[in-house]
Amino acid sequence: MSLTVVGSVAFDAIETPFGKTDKIIGGAGTYISLSASYFEKKTNIISVVGDDFPQEYLNMLNSHSIDTKGIQIKKGEKTFFWSGKYHSNMNVRDTITTELNSLATFNPEVPDQYQDTKYLMLGNLTPVIQRQVVERIKKRPKLVVMDTMNFWMDTMLDELKKTIKLVDVLSINDEEAQQLSGKHSLVKAARVISEMGPKFVIIKKGAHGALLFGEGKMFSAPALPLEFVFDPTGAGDTFAGGFIGYLAKTDDISFNNMKNAVIAGSVMASFNVEKFGTERIQELNEKIINQRVEKFVDLVSFDMKHPF
Amino acid sequence: MSLTVVGSVAFDAIETPFGKTDKIIGGAGTYISLSASYFEKKTNIISVVGDDFPQEYLNMLNSHSIDTKGIQIKKGEKTFFWSGKYHSNMNVRDTITTELNSLATFNPEVPDQYQDTKYLMLGNLTPVIQRQVVERIKKRPKLVVMDTMNFWMDTMLDELKKTIKLVDVLSINDEEAQQLSGKHSLVKAARVISEMGPKFVIIKKGAHGALLFGEGKMFSAPALPLEFVFDPTGAGDTFAGGFIGYLAKTDDISFNNMKNAVIAGSVMASFNVEKFGTERIQELNEKIINQRVEKFVDLVSFDMKHPF
Repeated sequence: MSLTVVGSVAFDAIETPFGKTDKIIGGAGTYISLSASYFEKKTNIISVVGDDFPQEYLNMLNSHSIDTKGIQIKKGEKTFFWSGKYHSNMNVRDTITTELNSLATFNPEVPDQYQDTKYLMLGNLTPVIQRQVVERIKKRPKLVVMDTMNFWMDTMLDELKKTIKLVDVLSINDEEAQQLSGKHSLVKAARVISEMGPKFVIIKKGAHGALLFGEGKMFSAPALPLEFVFDPTGAGDTFAGGFIGYLAKTDDISFNNMKNAVIAGSVMASFNVEKFGTERIQELNEKIINQRVEKFVDLVSFDMKHPF
Repeated sequence: MSLTVVGSVAFDAIETPFGKTDKIIGGAGTYISLSASYFEKKTNIISVVGDDFPQEYLNMLNSHSIDTKGIQIKKGEKTFFWSGKYHSNMNVRDTITTELNSLATFNPEVPDQYQDTKYLMLGNLTPVIQRQVVERIKKRPKLVVMDTMNFWMDTMLDELKKTIKLVDVLSINDEEAQQLSGKHSLVKAARVISEMGPKFVIIKKGAHGALLFGEGKMFSAPALPLEFVFDPTGAGDTFAGGFIGYLAKTDDISFNNMKNAVIAGSVMASFNVEKFGTERIQELNEKIINQRVEKFVDLVSFDMKHPF
């Protein structure tokens, strides 16, 4: 199979109660493609950076067999930069800096080699760019998955809805699902969002796991309860990468297999928070991932017959 | 087997965005024993009411084969009364009235017939009364489960810790677990609480389900995502009743069976919120409960092999 990811490739500077980083590689596209690359060996990325972006970061992505031909390098421009600071409970963060730089004028180009992509992941970006990518891939992929955030609901809801209409799966967090649908109940929210276009809706609940809705069915995936969350940056993107990477690897988009894909996403997100930035998801291997999958199976398994 | 529950039997007046009630039967002891009674046919309750408490409510409990000999009826006194109002998102409630009345001087008595109880459930009450019941049952029950709340942490932490030391299982919500342990991570919180005495710790997360910790293992139970929460009053007590009722019925206190008991508790809590007060958990039957158990099994089942 093949998978194409569109999303930001960025510099992040992160401060948590446990320490702070210099500018390190970040961005939704980076987290998604790294996470997906463990499952799908033909992962492509479409993005943009400035000429300040180090070749070693591109080499790192390539070493995970991620094709970076779709990353435009803009001469004389700088790479998107974000910095943020987490508070003691890790649930709240302040954005300190957002410098769009080369992302401000991003006009996504789809290399010819990516045209036959079967799985397309629209990482969090302006919905206009997300839609351009869908339109510029001539043959409709087998599955289009979209992640987004409240910022686009606040600033360009109409554009957002136009893009949502085009996708098969929308991945969104619980508060965003409530905002987008106007419904407090997540069951109702998923139904309203589904009426906007997507056949499947994933509602991410952070430390409380994720819900998958589709075909009139519901699946609840746990999050692994952790002793220590070092840095939550990119957890939602890493989740999305594990989800679509698993689907691309198994090439089965039934509801039953999407449940497994949600677990794969949750597994990858549980690793991501263990170290700063992408550090942890750069260093995984198949054995470690298998072991973590077993932990998730143990965590939710019970063998209850009818009580009566 | 046999099960004894200690907890308040009360009048509640509840207001939610969907309506309001007159004084109806409430109290932790009521919710717990009703919920447990579907599983354990020998359920006893120890409590106190005033002589304003209608015989028809006692008859209702008896009709669920709950033994009410342990409910003291105080002449010339009134029954504990609580009234509260829920806000639109149902997560926040204001207490409008708390009249302790006969509960203020409650001196729990254990009828002789309850002395051989195998399962003891300490519903939320002052930790002093909870401890008195443990001490007044001469033969140690097979399992003692305790529910409590932040109010006792704020007002009598030392007494609370003395009682916690005596029990096998502590059931508590997530914020309370964090307060009691001083730890933000629920994994760490459960470990700290376990060091206070209980071999097993249940952390209730409301609409996000519950976690069970013990024997170095962890289990995550989902909550059923609901379209409609009519009245959350008593959901935690109903959970506790389903949990201990299932254990008493199956008489198996292994970690594996406790996982099933947590599901049984979650199932009962999912019913409880569908109507005002105890209305829904008065009218259940074994077939309806079996069907809801199936929904929980469906909700979390996935069949993922090692991805690699």
